[in-house]
Amino acid sequence: MNKILRVDVSKMETRTEPVPEDYQLLGGRGLTSRIVLDEVEPTCHPLGEQNKLVVAPGLLGGTRCPNAGRFSFGAKSPLTGGIKESNAGSSCAHKLASLGYKAIIVEGRPDEDEDFHLLYLSDDGAELQPAEEFAGMGAYELNDRLRKKYGDQIYVSCIGPAGEMRMSAAGVSNNDPEGGPGRFAGRGGLGAVMGAKKLKAIVMDTRKVFESPIKNREAFQKAAKKFAGILTSNKISGEALTNYGTDVLMNILNEAGGLPTQNFRRGRFEGAPRISGEALAQIAMERGGVGTPVHNCHPGCVIRCSNIYPDKDGNALCSPIEYETAWALGANCLIDDLDTIGLLNRMCNDYGLDTIETGGALGVAMEAGVIKFGDGKGAIHLLEEVGRGTPLGRIIGNGADSVGKAYGITRVATVKGQHLPAYDPRAVKGIGVTYAMTTMGADHTAGYSVASNILKSGGFVDPLKPEGQVDLSAKLQIAAAAIDTLGLCIFTSFALSDNPEGFPTVVDMMNNMYGLSWTAEDILELGREALRVEKEFNRRAGFTPAHDRLPEFFRTEPLPPHNTVFDVPVEEMDRMNEQFNMLQ
Amino acid sequence: MNKILRVDVSKMETRTEPVPEDYQLLGGRGLTSRIVLDEVEPTCHPLGEQNKLVVAPGLLGGTRCPNAGRFSFGAKSPLTGGIKESNAGSSCAHKLASLGYKAIIVEGRPDEDEDFHLLYLSDDGAELQPAEEFAGMGAYELNDRLRKKYGDQIYVSCIGPAGEMRMSAAGVSNNDPEGGPGRFAGRGGLGAVMGAKKLKAIVMDTRKVFESPIKNREAFQKAAKKFAGILTSNKISGEALTNYGTDVLMNILNEAGGLPTQNFRRGRFEGAPRISGEALAQIAMERGGVGTPVHNCHPGCVIRCSNIYPDKDGNALCSPIEYETAWALGANCLIDDLDTIGLLNRMCNDYGLDTIETGGALGVAMEAGVIKFGDGKGAIHLLEEVGRGTPLGRIIGNGADSVGKAYGITRVATVKGQHLPAYDPRAVKGIGVTYAMTTMGADHTAGYSVASNILKSGGFVDPLKPEGQVDLSAKLQIAAAAIDTLGLCIFTSFALSDNPEGFPTVVDMMNNMYGLSWTAEDILELGREALRVEKEFNRRAGFTPAHDRLPEFFRTEPLPPHNTVFDVPVEEMDRMNEQFNMLQ
Repeated sequence: MNKILRVDVSKMETRTEPVPEDYQLLGGRGLTSRIVLDEVEPTCHPLGEQNKLVVAPGLLGGTRCPNAGRFSFGAKSPLTGGIKESNAGSSCAHKLASLGYKAIIVEGRPDEDEDFHLLYLSDDGAELQPAEEFAGMGAYELNDRLRKKYGDQIYVSCIGPAGEMRMSAAGVSNNDPEGGPGRFAGRGGLGAVMGAKKLKAIVMDTRKVFESPIKNREAFQKAAKKFAGILTSNKISGEALTNYGTDVLMNILNEAGGLPTQNFRRGRFEGAPRISGEALAQIAMERGGVGTPVHNCHPGCVIRCSNIYPDKDGNALCSPIEYETAWALGANCLIDDLDTIGLLNRMCNDYGLDTIETGGALGVAMEAGVIKFGDGKGAIHLLEEVGRGTPLGRIIGNGADSVGKAYGITRVATVKGQHLPAYDPRAVKGIGVTYAMTTMGADHTAGYSVASNILKSGGFVDPLKPEGQVDLSAKLQIAAAAIDTLGLCIFTSFALSDNPEGFPTVVDMMNNMYGLSWTAEDILELGREALRVEKEFNRRAGFTPAHDRLPEFFRTEPLPPHNTVFDVPVEEMDRMNEQFNMLQ
Repeated sequence: MNKILRVDVSKMETRTEPVPEDYQLLGGRGLTSRIVLDEVEPTCHPLGEQNKLVVAPGLLGGTRCPNAGRFSFGAKSPLTGGIKESNAGSSCAHKLASLGYKAIIVEGRPDEDEDFHLLYLSDDGAELQPAEEFAGMGAYELNDRLRKKYGDQIYVSCIGPAGEMRMSAAGVSNNDPEGGPGRFAGRGGLGAVMGAKKLKAIVMDTRKVFESPIKNREAFQKAAKKFAGILTSNKISGEALTNYGTDVLMNILNEAGGLPTQNFRRGRFEGAPRISGEALAQIAMERGGVGTPVHNCHPGCVIRCSNIYPDKDGNALCSPIEYETAWALGANCLIDDLDTIGLLNRMCNDYGLDTIETGGALGVAMEAGVIKFGDGKGAIHLLEEVGRGTPLGRIIGNGADSVGKAYGITRVATVKGQHLPAYDPRAVKGIGVTYAMTTMGADHTAGYSVASNILKSGGFVDPLKPEGQVDLSAKLQIAAAAIDTLGLCIFTSFALSDNPEGFPTVVDMMNNMYGLSWTAEDILELGREALRVEKEFNRRAGFTPAHDRLPEFFRTEPLPPHNTVFDVPVEEMDRMNEQFNMLQ
């Protein structure tokens, strides 16, 4: 990863630059956020020419470190108006790193009547190529067509119609190892930024997978092997997630009374077992077909929490159904049928929509009476409207706040304009702190307190009490930012927390890859610095502690069955910011 | 004005309270903003139960002071997310003052399935009465029906369907002396706040008009008479506005190259003469019918800049067509036909929509290609959708930002979510400073630099140069806030600036009414304190200098014919805030 690729879509030019000294030991989120702070005017329009879309593999990208195949997209977010990093596990991550790209910076904006283009990356370099023939195409057809044109060896990052229409719920779709388009950098509307740049796809045409240069290769491989063992011997990352995927959480959160049901009215959903990971695994097993529920999103993943959901004939309907998706399109909307959820998921994948934001938007549309709660057919119809870009479709496709605004609804579970994921902050209070305070808008991955609140990984903090949640969230926000900078999967964190050899092994890999003599503290400092950078961007963009708040109903309306409200003191939350205020 | 009326729409109760000592010398905007700061949680949802709608006549309300019949509505704005004061000239202002109400505070929120109510105010007191029979009704029919029910002597403040649907472009409609519903507290979506409170109307049933107590009545009346002379002898308030209404500005701004045309692409519109005040006066004269173009919005107005626009048969189509309206629905959309504009204006009046925000929204819809620029029939059709509450209608009815969001359009001329009025900030730079920096979102009345930039009232500051604009805007923002607190019409400010006897005469009236010994400085201090209060609310709500910015295209895209950009230095603008930062 020795070069930065700058893609100017105003001038239709690409050029490579050497990596500046102070970016050398940054990657993934740490690098996208740093470049956004350094190069993007914080008050600019997210869809305007001053915004930039930055893509970066993690520091461990393009290596055989297990579960290091996540890469980051960064920009100013059209959904939140703040800085955004959204990452995905995909074959594309290692490809990009192996092609030597530390980062891609897409800048400028073509005139509105310009054609779409795609960025073609191969061992021979980078080139913008016409892509108007693919305009309007869903991700499934697009991937088929691109493989016909460029060959089966390619991997693709792309947008669907939602991104082309610059909808704020649009994400960037990326390929799994089989070439399926289900691996999403979903959150924050970065697909709309890509659409505004009139960039339909990035095509990576190379056989290289694990080609990042490594200073001490032998020692690195030894540590990588050890790390694989650490991950697979952990009960969560080696058993629960592997056997049932992330949707194993459905029954767990339901049992804990923290499963947001019917647009955050209750913490339990009677249909939960029918849309759980256990149910999903059973259906997949029974229907046979394309694969077991155990599936990995990128080469080198040993957790394999992804799945392929087969339809009644055993053919792949979509991949994967994640817990967050099964919740957003399921419990949140009172839909308890996995086939309906699978179809809605497929439609989101095809149109290029974040399933969390879309499920949230559907829930608010149900709240407004556009369709009834539980109306699966109605939900499918609403998503079709999104794909067609009708006025109603645009209301939905711009996310939950957009629907709330259109229909004058106050019961909208968003922070900084981004919809809450699948954990009710009144029953899992640590995640409420994360939702409120992360730079990203409501985001579970930015500080996954569910680990300690519910799964008792990394200690236990009572999810129903306000005490200890701020410290827990702060610690996890730092860890998450570090992990996102390394390009590691967030699910490595269970083993990193619970196995004393976990973190030192990651340090080992970093030292052997880059010839460093870092300690764990240096890794954590990557996370702290990423947070400082992001908070500084948001400060310049106009964010204050007044934005670090949950919607008011979480503090006033008790959540059954525990009948608790979110009561972490605001003052305690605001003090957390002090440790991230000084940009170094 | 010796009592405050508190209306709790959760409990369906009304009660009066004495006026607290520190509210005694506040009124209008100064009072609504103070109460909003004192009582409304700044981070609350504008449509939720924690927001309050405050109504207050000015300090000179209910007196024979000329042009003192404006009253203020205040709340946290659903459009801007900040504090909002919107005022209107209406018979209702004097009625409210004469009934003794210093302010009405509407608080709480009924359940969603509750019926609409109205607030009935008479000499016998205040009462919430059922109004579900009027739900869904436009302002014209509603006013007719209310007069049938309560008698012809009533005056009404009400919302139309837009407010009921909680659209952010919804205003509050108020009666002129003839009972027409065209006097709008239009800006900032306060009609949506009233709709969320399920309050359809406020009915004022009293014969009283000028009944506010006055300490030294004789001296007051003498000063009032003198002030009338000062206003009518001013060239702008006594001639131009009286003869041609506010739309006299159409040709003036067009000539100055500052008339925003086709969604702020150019500063001149070739159709301007056809939609000017001169054209309007001629049509009204030719068609005869209901009245001359000279019309007053409230008893005691001596400027009489309002008008009644007759249709081809001489019947009133709407009243009034203001300059801002003729611009927003005209030049901004490339519509050059007053009959079309008059019909669109009537529809806005009927549905209860702010014409500036609605015209802005239509312009962005044209930008997005929903209809073509200049398509008057298409514009009428889009407004019908607003009235019906279709998805497209809701996109439009929530204002220009809502349309920009739905269609991914960056050319949206808003500040803090509120659309710019009828002066391009690249050719009238003082108003650009006001748009950017007022607490209200883009608002010309908050600091009407056009007076000095274009009309050469109160001195001359070259509209095309950046120098002097910040000082000009700051001075005028203070004056405007003071005038809004007194309940005076903003058009008194020409005489106040140009006639050395103007301001002392206003001071005279205040001293004689309240038994004070104020100087002009005390009046200005009312304005400064209002601004400090509003900035403090906005600060707590999360606003920073990053929000005090015009959309980026005003700084990058030159405006023909002068080919200037907005180039007032940001640093100079930010320094203006320092003088308002200290709340006293």
